[in-house]
Amino acid sequence: MAHSEAERRAMSRALELAARGPRSRNPQVGAVILSPGGEVLAEGWHRGAGTAHAEVDALSKLPEGGARGATAVVTLEPCNHTGLTGPCSEALLAAGVARVVYAIDDPGKTSGGGAERLRAAGVDVEAGVLADEAGAFLEPWITSFRLGRPHVTVKWAQSLDGRAAATDGTSQWITGAEARADVHRRRAEADAIVVGTGTLLADDPQLTARIDGRLAERQPVPVVIGTSRVPADAAVHRHPANEAVGGQPLVYPTHDLAAVLADLRDRGLHRVFVEGGPTLVSAFLRSGLADRLLVYVAPVLLGGPRLSLDDIGVGTIGDARRLVIDHTATLGDDVLFEARLRERRPWPGKEED
Amino acid sequence: MAHSEAERRAMSRALELAARGPRSRNPQVGAVILSPGGEVLAEGWHRGAGTAHAEVDALSKLPEGGARGATAVVTLEPCNHTGLTGPCSEALLAAGVARVVYAIDDPGKTSGGGAERLRAAGVDVEAGVLADEAGAFLEPWITSFRLGRPHVTVKWAQSLDGRAAATDGTSQWITGAEARADVHRRRAEADAIVVGTGTLLADDPQLTARIDGRLAERQPVPVVIGTSRVPADAAVHRHPANEAVGGQPLVYPTHDLAAVLADLRDRGLHRVFVEGGPTLVSAFLRSGLADRLLVYVAPVLLGGPRLSLDDIGVGTIGDARRLVIDHTATLGDDVLFEARLRERRPWPGKEED
Repeated sequence: MAHSEAERRAMSRALELAARGPRSRNPQVGAVILSPGGEVLAEGWHRGAGTAHAEVDALSKLPEGGARGATAVVTLEPCNHTGLTGPCSEALLAAGVARVVYAIDDPGKTSGGGAERLRAAGVDVEAGVLADEAGAFLEPWITSFRLGRPHVTVKWAQSLDGRAAATDGTSQWITGAEARADVHRRRAEADAIVVGTGTLLADDPQLTARIDGRLAERQPVPVVIGTSRVPADAAVHRHPANEAVGGQPLVYPTHDLAAVLADLRDRGLHRVFVEGGPTLVSAFLRSGLADRLLVYVAPVLLGGPRLSLDDIGVGTIGDARRLVIDHTATLGDDVLFEARLRERRPWPGKEED
Repeated sequence: MAHSEAERRAMSRALELAARGPRSRNPQVGAVILSPGGEVLAEGWHRGAGTAHAEVDALSKLPEGGARGATAVVTLEPCNHTGLTGPCSEALLAAGVARVVYAIDDPGKTSGGGAERLRAAGVDVEAGVLADEAGAFLEPWITSFRLGRPHVTVKWAQSLDGRAAATDGTSQWITGAEARADVHRRRAEADAIVVGTGTLLADDPQLTARIDGRLAERQPVPVVIGTSRVPADAAVHRHPANEAVGGQPLVYPTHDLAAVLADLRDRGLHRVFVEGGPTLVSAFLRSGLADRLLVYVAPVLLGGPRLSLDDIGVGTIGDARRLVIDHTATLGDDVLFEARLRERRPWPGKEED
């Protein structure tokens, strides 16, 4: 049975509701319960791990038996497992829902299978309604769910000979205006922007995304990793995205990048943009925690000791980290190499509620 | 008056004669003396600094008065100055030559002006006969004449992050087969191939130009620069071009690159291809003695301490050596950047006979 216009409208509404939920390790999901005639009976959304899933939130607003014969419209396939909460498929069955319409499949091996369970119990199930919109909305979460950690983009700018700065440490500007504008556009697409304390102390970066000289509407949360102290007057304290994470930048005085990424994922920061400096960039590469590389190469030679990368764990040529260059672009005088590491070291992903 | 077919044939012959002369600091020049009727009266060519120029060599083969009313066909404009030998323009006038046909102008400020001198004395002068052929033949000499030293191409291969080798020194192969084949084609176009003693000791390179696995017909003369001793059994001792320079590779136990280049020019080695290693390449860059750069970049990250360049004399970012990228090419997985330094430091050129 094809879906109705009312169901389509309800799905659009469910996506709005989903966005009300917090970014967290869990997906943002919305749900609308429709009467057999297509009227909205109840709405719900997920408010983060440990709270009710969207379907259950919506059902909870109806009196006992109020969803009998109704249609549940949900942005993500109802889950089929018991995590911190019970399986949504069972909740929908218990409520006597006759039909379920959802947008995209649950990517989880343990949480998935809800559609099958519902069909087996005689419920009419339709998948794929507004799948493109829902997929775009949930893409960062799906990616980090599949990786078992946030997606990490590592960016650096260098001279052709691989230097980040001249011998005396000066570096503004190795790359030109077009390359820097490209970096800002990509910052605006990230959830978190990460620097090491070395770079913070050396450059006092703002870590904002600026487009045409103005702050972008979307700002990544600033994240500082390293054991040096962050000065009280560092520019990063005035970052506009700080309010989203309690008023201060996220500071991790650690070398455990996996732990940092786990915490960022818990906070729903699924797209991480690592900006440097060389020590931190090299640590991400050495740990195999770099999904995408953006290397901005300026047509300049510098020589000297200020390298863009230090030790990345390659002892011998057979261990060279081969790249897949997905894309090259000319940005003014500079060249951008967009690449992936040819083999990524396995990362123990873990599914949780 | 347009030139005759006999003059054109004579110019073609003069170019053959020119090639008999040795490569040296002086140009290779050939000359043919034609009777007014177009018969070949005499041939000559230049045998190197201090010996007769081609025109004078040809005239010397005729009896007193034998060139009266004749036509001199010369590959290069007759010179007009007294160096180690007297000016050819005066010799042609003294011989009573009625017409002079030459291919290309003398690029020298002091040696040039021969055509003008001859015309002023009533000789019929025509320039530009087989100019393309003669220009191609003399191009390396003209370039080194204008530079005041040989033309220097500096080549290196590197990982994207500017490394020449992994931490343990292994490097075969950073770049792929296509990039290596390109290097060999370019070696075959050079007169001399230069390495430092560090590379010689580390890699024992053959320094030959090989195309499709076979030795190219044209081989650059191997040149070794540096103060370490060249082992008696080094592969370079068996280089096929050694016989052109006395049976042994040219070894310069010095750090004075200008002196090396001056000697190479004296030997007629006008196109120099510097292959490495990083110390020597950096010294050429630091000295401003690099006319063309060939940077083969492999899509690989290595990190670690084995850099393709070391100190090139850039202390602060304002002194960065900006490049003009004339050409980029994809060679298999690798990218070749063909570039020039944006400003070349002045080099005191000096004209000599």
